[in-house]
Amino acid sequence: MYRNSLMERLALDHPIIQAPMAGGGDTPEMVMAVGKAGGLGSMGVSYLQPDRISANATRVREGSNAGFAVNLFAPLDPPPPPADPGPALDFVRPHYQALGITPPGTVNGAEFDFEAQVEQVLDSGASVFSFAFGIMPEHVIERARQRGMLVMGTATSVAEAQALEAAGVDAVIAQGAEAGGHRAGFGADLTRAMVGTMALVPQVVSAVGVPVVASGGITDGRGIAAALALGASAAQMGTAFLTTTEAGIPEAHKQAILDAKETDTTLTRAFSGRPARGIRNRVIADGEAMPDRLLDFPYQNALTRTLRAEAAKQQNPDFLSLWAGQGLGLARRLSAAELMQHLIEEMRAALASAARYG
Amino acid sequence: MYRNSLMERLALDHPIIQAPMAGGGDTPEMVMAVGKAGGLGSMGVSYLQPDRISANATRVREGSNAGFAVNLFAPLDPPPPPADPGPALDFVRPHYQALGITPPGTVNGAEFDFEAQVEQVLDSGASVFSFAFGIMPEHVIERARQRGMLVMGTATSVAEAQALEAAGVDAVIAQGAEAGGHRAGFGADLTRAMVGTMALVPQVVSAVGVPVVASGGITDGRGIAAALALGASAAQMGTAFLTTTEAGIPEAHKQAILDAKETDTTLTRAFSGRPARGIRNRVIADGEAMPDRLLDFPYQNALTRTLRAEAAKQQNPDFLSLWAGQGLGLARRLSAAELMQHLIEEMRAALASAARYG
Repeated sequence: MYRNSLMERLALDHPIIQAPMAGGGDTPEMVMAVGKAGGLGSMGVSYLQPDRISANATRVREGSNAGFAVNLFAPLDPPPPPADPGPALDFVRPHYQALGITPPGTVNGAEFDFEAQVEQVLDSGASVFSFAFGIMPEHVIERARQRGMLVMGTATSVAEAQALEAAGVDAVIAQGAEAGGHRAGFGADLTRAMVGTMALVPQVVSAVGVPVVASGGITDGRGIAAALALGASAAQMGTAFLTTTEAGIPEAHKQAILDAKETDTTLTRAFSGRPARGIRNRVIADGEAMPDRLLDFPYQNALTRTLRAEAAKQQNPDFLSLWAGQGLGLARRLSAAELMQHLIEEMRAALASAARYG
Repeated sequence: MYRNSLMERLALDHPIIQAPMAGGGDTPEMVMAVGKAGGLGSMGVSYLQPDRISANATRVREGSNAGFAVNLFAPLDPPPPPADPGPALDFVRPHYQALGITPPGTVNGAEFDFEAQVEQVLDSGASVFSFAFGIMPEHVIERARQRGMLVMGTATSVAEAQALEAAGVDAVIAQGAEAGGHRAGFGADLTRAMVGTMALVPQVVSAVGVPVVASGGITDGRGIAAALALGASAAQMGTAFLTTTEAGIPEAHKQAILDAKETDTTLTRAFSGRPARGIRNRVIADGEAMPDRLLDFPYQNALTRTLRAEAAKQQNPDFLSLWAGQGLGLARRLSAAELMQHLIEEMRAALASAARYG
């Protein structure tokens, strides 16, 4: 079994990383199943209180001997609170009313205590500290390395990848435009240059000296094989795992992914204030019609939190953030263990098939 | 040397197709060089008068024994001429003036005689009749097959690929969002769903029974290897060939590709009226600022034709259509023969490297 340096370091049998999915998609059960199958599971913990980060990590450690990744958003300088929250409150009011719950009367910007989250990540026992939305402060990267963690940052362009390498990461996750969920980059304009995975990955591989993980639009083993051909050391996949039994998302979200076509997703700021890819629904359509009413992150995120929680209870896809990547047509209902088995077999078949041309 | 059914049929030694580049990029010399190196060269002939199609095809046939492809746009029902061409004339006036030439006073919609072009394509001796922007009329597909030509259509979504298969094509070119130049699809909204190559190709491969050619963002041999891993029978590449010696584009265009970053391209309607990917310049910026002044194809195309020709003479990149895909950071100054040699070696190296994971 061949292992590149990244896989060696992480003791991975297969170059497969289950993407962090902050918001509950990546349950400890999923992370354990991926680890047991020889891949790397990830927990996105940015929306978790510090004690919850610790509890989830403990559960994974107790259930599996495999390493795992913890992913945290880099701290953002939050923009000033909106001077006039009226239009934003108007935007969400009909959505709350449609679900029969009370619309918010104010905008709350309080998110989580970043430094406390960092402490829990450092104490989590994770083998990988990965991050998105920017570059972690130097002292955080330093301390993660001292704990023996492998540090990975996420880039959506060559310049971002080079900035991450300069900051001392051990590996770069190159996120192509096909990816579901939030754009993880930190360039001047995250939506102006959406570079596809096929173009982004080899350009990043040529530009940096550290291992590169490919992400975006990879949903079956053919995509993993393609990522390796592009020079990536592993493939990171989110959408493929969102329809597994273990995924902690509403059933209505899973079904929406299985019913959607590859052309059904778009970027939206309507749910969180940051651009993210999801399946078009009423909230996204309203956001396209009234972009000026949307607040920046984290204010928009706070404004829709209760809405999304209630929509999940009611299994109403019109008001859920139906995050998904453009590879969704290849998503399947399986357990995470079954999915891993399929991915490995498909990857091997694709590699063998392609190798005939060599 | 392994050949899949598409390569067998076309007697290709390598799964490499030089993309058609209507507008002069794909000279007969380029097509010959690609064919001699064991790939498939293509001529985009939609902007050529019928006698020119014939002359170029004759030149290729006389210079090479290899097969080649001719690519034609499917006929569009042209929209009615603009009721008030004033804003469109206002849009281009400062551009013409900046180059010191007389701005147009009227909008011309006359393009080329489609049926006469078809006759020349059928008589060209090409081994492949490929098309874009729609589905060729049934009688054209029928006659191409009768001539022994292999028929290929271009899709930007699974639904378009299925429609092409139903229309009887022998192979589908799946064009991902990374691709340079015109979006070749024909769905309701070509810009609403820009599906990346990594996601599009395996979904198309799974959805149709005919061979699939991957295009979009593939600029070196790693990308070709990745396309094969995704299940494609060949990779089609445009940008990589635009910087070769044989490419018939202005030197200023070649240099712009070599100088640009992967984040520098965008979709624009400013040059032709149809969405196409090029490197940002003044005309694109003006088009973004004044989208309502742009006409539909073919009117916008006619309006900028003289402008582009003069900009080419003056080597002024501000007013050239600098078509390029997102893989442009990997483009190189080489002869087409040298490029083919590099692509083949890189593809083999990437396949061998990836195969270790099998």
